[in-house]
Amino acid sequence: MDLSAVKFDDNGLVPVVAQDAATGEILMVAWANAEALETTERDGLATWWSRSRRELWTKGKTSGNTLKVRDILIDCDGDTLIYTVEPSGPACHTGKRTCFFRRNENGAWSDIAGL
Amino acid sequence: MDLSAVKFDDNGLVPVVAQDAATGEILMVAWANAEALETTERDGLATWWSRSRRELWTKGKTSGNTLKVRDILIDCDGDTLIYTVEPSGPACHTGKRTCFFRRNENGAWSDIAGL
Repeated sequence: MDLSAVKFDDNGLVPVVAQDAATGEILMVAWANAEALETTERDGLATWWSRSRRELWTKGKTSGNTLKVRDILIDCDGDTLIYTVEPSGPACHTGKRTCFFRRNENGAWSDIAGL
Repeated sequence: MDLSAVKFDDNGLVPVVAQDAATGEILMVAWANAEALETTERDGLATWWSRSRRELWTKGKTSGNTLKVRDILIDCDGDTLIYTVEPSGPACHTGKRTCFFRRNENGAWSDIAGL
Protein backbone atom coordinates (compact mmCIF):
# COMPACT_ATOMS: atom_id res chain seq x y z
CA MET A 1 0.00 0.00 0.00
CA ASP A 2 1.22 3.51 -0.76
CA LEU A 3 1.24 5.00 2.73
CA SER A 4 2.57 8.32 1.47
CA ALA A 5 -0.99 9.18 0.35
CA VAL A 6 -2.39 8.58 3.84
CA LYS A 7 -2.69 11.66 6.04
CA PHE A 8 -2.32 10.35 9.57
CA ASP A 9 -3.33 12.68 12.39
CA ASP A 10 -1.03 13.93 15.16
CA ASN A 11 -1.35 10.55 16.86
CA GLY A 12 -0.44 8.66 13.70
CA LEU A 13 -4.02 7.49 13.16
CA VAL A 14 -6.74 7.65 10.50
CA PRO A 15 -10.38 6.60 10.82
CA VAL A 16 -11.23 3.52 8.79
CA VAL A 17 -14.84 2.62 8.01
CA ALA A 18 -15.71 -1.07 7.62
CA GLN A 19 -18.46 -1.51 5.05
CA ASP A 20 -20.18 -4.77 4.16
CA ALA A 21 -19.13 -5.54 0.57
CA ALA A 22 -22.39 -7.32 -0.18
CA THR A 23 -24.97 -5.03 1.39
CA GLY A 24 -23.21 -1.65 1.64
CA GLU A 25 -24.07 -1.50 5.33
CA ILE A 26 -21.59 0.42 7.47
CA LEU A 27 -20.52 -1.97 10.21
CA MET A 28 -18.08 0.01 12.33
CA VAL A 29 -15.51 2.79 12.36
CA ALA A 30 -12.19 2.58 14.19
CA TRP A 31 -8.69 4.03 13.98
CA ALA A 32 -5.71 2.60 12.17
CA ASN A 33 -2.01 3.38 12.23
CA ALA A 34 0.43 2.49 9.47
CA GLU A 35 1.11 -0.94 10.92
CA ALA A 36 -2.63 -1.73 11.10
CA LEU A 37 -3.06 -0.82 7.43
CA GLU A 38 -0.08 -2.92 6.39
CA THR A 39 -1.26 -5.85 8.49
CA THR A 40 -4.71 -5.61 6.91
CA GLU A 41 -3.21 -5.61 3.43
CA ARG A 42 -0.89 -8.53 4.22
CA ASP A 43 -3.31 -10.79 6.11
CA GLY A 44 -6.62 -9.77 4.52
CA LEU A 45 -8.35 -9.31 7.86
CA ALA A 46 -9.57 -5.89 9.02
CA THR A 47 -7.10 -4.57 11.58
CA TRP A 48 -7.11 -1.33 13.58
CA TRP A 49 -5.19 0.23 16.44
CA SER A 50 -6.96 0.00 19.76
CA ARG A 51 -6.58 3.42 21.35
CA SER A 52 -7.75 2.15 24.73
CA ARG A 53 -5.55 -0.95 24.85
CA ARG A 54 -2.74 0.67 22.84
CA GLU A 55 -2.20 -2.37 20.67
CA LEU A 56 -2.79 -3.67 17.17
CA TRP A 57 -6.29 -5.07 16.96
CA THR A 58 -7.42 -7.57 14.36
CA LYS A 59 -11.19 -7.60 14.69
CA GLY A 60 -12.46 -11.06 15.64
CA LYS A 61 -9.11 -12.57 16.54
CA THR A 62 -10.65 -13.49 19.89
CA SER A 63 -14.36 -13.75 19.08
CA GLY A 64 -13.95 -15.33 15.65
CA ASN A 65 -16.06 -12.58 14.11
CA THR A 66 -13.44 -11.45 11.64
CA LEU A 67 -13.93 -9.13 8.71
CA LYS A 68 -12.33 -10.44 5.53
CA VAL A 69 -11.13 -7.47 3.52
CA ARG A 70 -11.95 -7.37 -0.16
CA ASP A 71 -10.81 -3.80 -0.93
CA ILE A 72 -9.13 -0.85 0.74
CA LEU A 73 -10.34 2.57 -0.44
CA ILE A 74 -8.97 6.02 0.32
CA ASP A 75 -10.73 9.36 0.06
CA CYS A 76 -9.75 12.40 -1.99
CA ASP A 77 -7.70 14.06 0.73
CA GLY A 78 -6.26 10.86 2.16
CA ASP A 79 -7.46 11.28 5.73
CA THR A 80 -10.07 8.49 5.81
CA LEU A 81 -10.12 4.93 4.47
CA ILE A 82 -12.71 2.22 3.90
CA TYR A 83 -12.29 -1.51 4.29
CA THR A 84 -14.95 -3.25 2.19
CA VAL A 85 -15.44 -6.51 4.00
CA GLU A 86 -17.12 -9.88 4.20
CA PRO A 87 -18.15 -10.34 7.84
CA SER A 88 -18.08 -13.81 9.35
CA GLY A 89 -20.43 -12.79 12.17
CA PRO A 90 -21.80 -9.77 14.04
CA ALA A 91 -19.42 -6.81 13.81
CA CYS A 92 -20.52 -5.19 17.07
CA HIS A 93 -19.40 -6.37 20.50
CA THR A 94 -23.07 -6.12 21.52
CA GLY A 95 -23.89 -8.97 19.14
CA LYS A 96 -25.60 -6.67 16.66
CA ARG A 97 -24.75 -6.94 12.99
CA THR A 98 -23.50 -3.35 12.94
CA CYS A 99 -22.31 -0.90 15.60
CA PHE A 100 -24.69 1.69 14.12
CA PHE A 101 -27.95 0.37 15.51
CA ARG A 102 -29.33 3.63 16.97
CA ARG A 103 -30.90 6.56 15.19
CA ASN A 104 -31.88 10.03 16.33
CA GLU A 105 -35.64 10.12 16.78
CA ASN A 106 -37.34 13.10 18.36
CA GLY A 107 -34.17 14.06 20.15
CA ALA A 108 -33.36 10.61 21.59
CA TRP A 109 -31.33 7.65 20.33
CA SER A 110 -33.69 4.79 19.45
CA ASP A 111 -32.76 1.26 18.47
CA ILE A 112 -33.38 0.58 14.79
CA ALA A 113 -35.80 -2.28 14.21
CA GLY A 114 -34.28 -5.43 12.76
CA LEU A 115 -30.72 -4.79 13.87
CA MET B 1 -30.45 15.30 19.61
CA ASP B 2 -29.12 13.77 22.80
CA LEU B 3 -25.56 15.09 22.69
CA SER B 4 -24.73 13.45 26.03
CA ALA B 5 -24.30 10.14 24.16
CA VAL B 6 -21.75 11.65 21.77
CA LYS B 7 -18.11 11.18 22.73
CA PHE B 8 -16.34 14.16 21.25
CA ASP B 9 -12.54 13.99 21.06
CA ASP B 10 -10.14 16.41 22.75
CA ASN B 11 -10.88 18.95 20.01
CA GLY B 12 -14.64 18.62 20.49
CA LEU B 13 -15.05 16.70 17.25
CA VAL B 14 -16.42 13.34 16.04
CA PRO B 15 -16.08 11.81 12.58
CA VAL B 16 -19.37 11.68 10.68
CA VAL B 17 -19.79 9.45 7.64
CA ALA B 18 -22.19 10.57 4.92
CA GLN B 19 -23.87 7.57 3.31
CA ASP B 20 -26.23 7.65 0.34
CA ALA B 21 -29.62 6.59 1.69
CA ALA B 22 -30.66 5.05 -1.61
CA THR B 23 -27.52 3.18 -2.66
CA GLY B 24 -25.58 2.68 0.59
CA GLU B 25 -22.53 4.26 -1.01
CA ILE B 26 -20.21 6.06 1.40
CA LEU B 27 -19.84 9.56 0.02
CA MET B 28 -17.49 11.31 2.44
CA VAL B 29 -16.27 11.50 6.01
CA ALA B 30 -15.68 14.74 7.87
CA TRP B 31 -15.62 16.06 11.44
CA ALA B 32 -18.50 17.59 13.37
CA ASN B 33 -18.70 19.51 16.60
CA ALA B 34 -21.84 19.85 18.71
CA GLU B 35 -23.01 22.92 16.79
CA ALA B 36 -22.61 21.10 13.46
CA LEU B 37 -24.74 18.19 14.70
CA GLU B 38 -27.44 20.52 16.02
CA THR B 39 -27.43 22.53 12.80
CA THR B 40 -27.79 19.33 10.77
CA GLU B 41 -30.72 18.23 12.88
CA ARG B 42 -32.41 21.62 12.71
CA ASP B 43 -31.89 22.41 9.01
CA GLY B 44 -31.80 18.89 7.57
CA LEU B 45 -28.62 19.54 5.58
CA ALA B 46 -25.37 17.69 6.34
CA THR B 47 -23.13 20.07 8.25
CA TRP B 48 -19.60 19.58 9.60
CA TRP B 49 -16.85 21.67 11.17
CA SER B 50 -14.12 22.63 8.76
CA ARG B 51 -10.85 22.04 10.60
CA SER B 52 -8.86 23.97 8.00
CA ARG B 53 -11.16 27.01 7.82
CA ARG B 54 -12.22 26.73 11.46
CA GLU B 55 -15.87 27.35 10.71
CA LEU B 56 -19.20 25.58 10.47
CA TRP B 57 -19.52 24.00 7.05
CA THR B 58 -22.83 23.05 5.46
CA LYS B 59 -21.82 20.93 2.50
CA GLY B 60 -23.00 22.48 -0.76
CA LYS B 61 -23.97 25.88 0.62
CA THR B 62 -21.69 27.41 -2.04
CA SER B 63 -21.72 24.73 -4.77
CA GLY B 64 -25.36 23.78 -4.41
CA ASN B 65 -24.38 20.13 -3.96
CA THR B 66 -26.08 19.72 -0.60
CA LEU B 67 -26.76 16.48 1.23
CA LYS B 68 -30.30 16.29 2.54
CA VAL B 69 -30.22 14.31 5.78
CA ARG B 70 -32.79 11.58 6.26
CA ASP B 71 -31.36 10.00 9.43
CA ILE B 72 -28.61 10.49 11.98
CA LEU B 73 -27.12 7.28 13.40
CA ILE B 74 -24.67 6.80 16.26
CA ASP B 75 -22.44 3.82 16.96
CA CYS B 76 -22.30 1.65 20.08
CA ASP B 77 -19.63 3.69 21.84
CA GLY B 78 -20.83 7.07 20.62
CA ASP B 79 -17.61 8.21 18.96
CA THR B 80 -18.77 8.09 15.32
CA LEU B 81 -21.99 9.10 13.58
CA ILE B 82 -23.59 8.56 10.19
CA TYR B 83 -25.70 10.97 8.20
CA THR B 84 -27.82 8.97 5.76
CA VAL B 85 -28.37 11.42 2.95
CA GLU B 86 -29.99 12.22 -0.37
CA PRO B 87 -27.32 13.98 -2.45
CA SER B 88 -28.34 16.72 -4.87
CA GLY B 89 -25.09 16.39 -6.82
CA PRO B 90 -21.53 15.07 -6.61
CA ALA B 91 -20.34 14.87 -3.01
CA CYS B 92 -16.65 15.29 -3.81
CA HIS B 93 -15.02 18.62 -4.64
CA THR B 94 -13.34 16.79 -7.57
CA GLY B 95 -16.75 16.37 -9.20
CA LYS B 96 -16.84 12.64 -8.42
CA ARG B 97 -19.98 11.16 -6.89
CA THR B 98 -18.04 10.05 -3.81
CA CYS B 99 -14.74 11.09 -2.22
CA PHE B 100 -13.77 7.39 -2.10
CA PHE B 101 -12.88 6.87 -5.74
CA ARG B 102 -9.47 5.20 -5.27
CA ARG B 103 -8.67 1.65 -4.22
CA ASN B 104 -5.46 -0.08 -3.25
CA GLU B 105 -4.29 -2.19 -6.18
CA ASN B 106 -0.90 -3.86 -6.15
CA GLY B 107 0.42 -1.31 -3.69
CA ALA B 108 -0.80 1.80 -5.50
CA TRP B 109 -4.02 3.85 -5.36
CA SER B 110 -6.00 3.35 -8.58
CA ASP B 111 -9.11 5.18 -9.69
CA ILE B 112 -12.20 2.98 -9.51
CA ALA B 113 -13.93 2.60 -12.87
CA GLY B 114 -17.30 4.29 -13.16
CA LEU B 115 -16.79 6.85 -10.40
